[in-house]
Amino acid sequence: MTGRWITEVANGYGQTIEVKTCLCSRQSRFQKIEVYETVKLGRLLMLDGIIQLTDSDEFVYHEMLTNLPFYAHTGIPRRALVIGGGDGGALRELARHPELEKIDICEIDGEVIAAAKEFLPQTACGYDDPRVAVHVADGSEFVREHAGEYDIVIVDSTDPGGPGAPLFGEEFYANLKRALRPGGVIATQSESPFLLPEVVRQLNRAAKKNFRFVAYAGFAVPTYPTGMIGACVASDWRDVTTPDRQLSPELAKKLRYYTSQVHAASFAMPGFVGRLLD
Amino acid sequence: MTGRWITEVANGYGQTIEVKTCLCSRQSRFQKIEVYETVKLGRLLMLDGIIQLTDSDEFVYHEMLTNLPFYAHTGIPRRALVIGGGDGGALRELARHPELEKIDICEIDGEVIAAAKEFLPQTACGYDDPRVAVHVADGSEFVREHAGEYDIVIVDSTDPGGPGAPLFGEEFYANLKRALRPGGVIATQSESPFLLPEVVRQLNRAAKKNFRFVAYAGFAVPTYPTGMIGACVASDWRDVTTPDRQLSPELAKKLRYYTSQVHAASFAMPGFVGRLLD
Repeated sequence: MTGRWITEVANGYGQTIEVKTCLCSRQSRFQKIEVYETVKLGRLLMLDGIIQLTDSDEFVYHEMLTNLPFYAHTGIPRRALVIGGGDGGALRELARHPELEKIDICEIDGEVIAAAKEFLPQTACGYDDPRVAVHVADGSEFVREHAGEYDIVIVDSTDPGGPGAPLFGEEFYANLKRALRPGGVIATQSESPFLLPEVVRQLNRAAKKNFRFVAYAGFAVPTYPTGMIGACVASDWRDVTTPDRQLSPELAKKLRYYTSQVHAASFAMPGFVGRLLD
Repeated sequence: MTGRWITEVANGYGQTIEVKTCLCSRQSRFQKIEVYETVKLGRLLMLDGIIQLTDSDEFVYHEMLTNLPFYAHTGIPRRALVIGGGDGGALRELARHPELEKIDICEIDGEVIAAAKEFLPQTACGYDDPRVAVHVADGSEFVREHAGEYDIVIVDSTDPGGPGAPLFGEEFYANLKRALRPGGVIATQSESPFLLPEVVRQLNRAAKKNFRFVAYAGFAVPTYPTGMIGACVASDWRDVTTPDRQLSPELAKKLRYYTSQVHAASFAMPGFVGRLLD
């Protein structure tokens, strides 16, 4: 191992990635923001020392977190909200859908948005769509103040330790529910059952207290610790584990991870995860 | 990061694991064999510097590699062969099935078997079953010499670079096919499409030249690079992507990853993997 490597460690296990240069290292009011040019994985974003994305595999997370609720929705979603997700990747995936009329984002840290626009063009291109409106504010307050406005709400948060902490509680899920219009669906970043089983369980319980249909989807993201991450998808209107509509042939050619078959398959829980969520 | 960490690097990306002690470091005729006691993940086996398993997550790989072909088999499998798999984990999973009358293993490196029996009791307990017969020999020759003997053959190999190299060619797949009895199914360790897409493609092609039904299954194993690995499952007798039989309730309680739903779901290919295998 020559050259410079950055390492993220959690619970006796770490991942280490070879980097060429540090493009950005800033302390915002909320967190430390770093962007690196890696040797093999494109650009990399870290917040408070935790890897948020690399160019090489962010497509998995962003396609799944947005398309699971989009296609679980029974009808045609018109209004979407992203909480967090300052890098813009969730916006980019939502903007692929001409059905959407309004795409709001509420990110607490304006400096994450600025750093993404400057150093992460692959994800920040999501901001270019004219339907996108940016709100720099606390997401937990924002949903409380926007009852009955959205068809899908996506919570693209950091881990429970950082500024995203309020996004992991029961009250937040009650407010998410109120932010929905009839037919609405939410999807929230829900961690890895290998690494944080208690967080997965807690989010599932918070969602079940507020929604009739709740399910956990897992998907493979190599640069998240344990190589996987999940989404909690919830609705009061229909079982979210099967898509309501198929991908159009044009979109099927563009997407690299999400397919209509992968939608359903991502909810098939390994035995230990099923028991965790019982 | 204090303490001692061992690191495996591939393609600008690495994983690093905190260890307490090195229990075994031996050079066999074929490879360097190391076993560590880790801080959080139990025992860990490395061959030529590449992590083969940890106690914490080997259940995923061993349950999937054995149960996919077991339940894809149209009938009742009686005779199983494991090529490689010297740690014993595949044997342990096969031995859960009372239907099996004969479980052969052909491992090229007797010193891997010896090290597993001494230092990896969690996996090497697979050798305790009286139906298991051990053959220390070259797996590619062994299958050539045992035509028409097995209902399922499991290839639990190292990567193409090591002593497992002959297990990645077309001729080997032709011999695997000849080793099967009517109804037979094979499953081979088939790498990660994130890390080694060309190997995944090559194995798929070798299998398709020899078998009527071929499919790639992916599953989450945190301590393999990219956090996932796959199996190529193939048969001449039926579509392998759905189980022929459901798990018994007793076995469903014991297994931690494989379920009848996970069987089918593991074959749902993300878009980029589907295009790789076209």
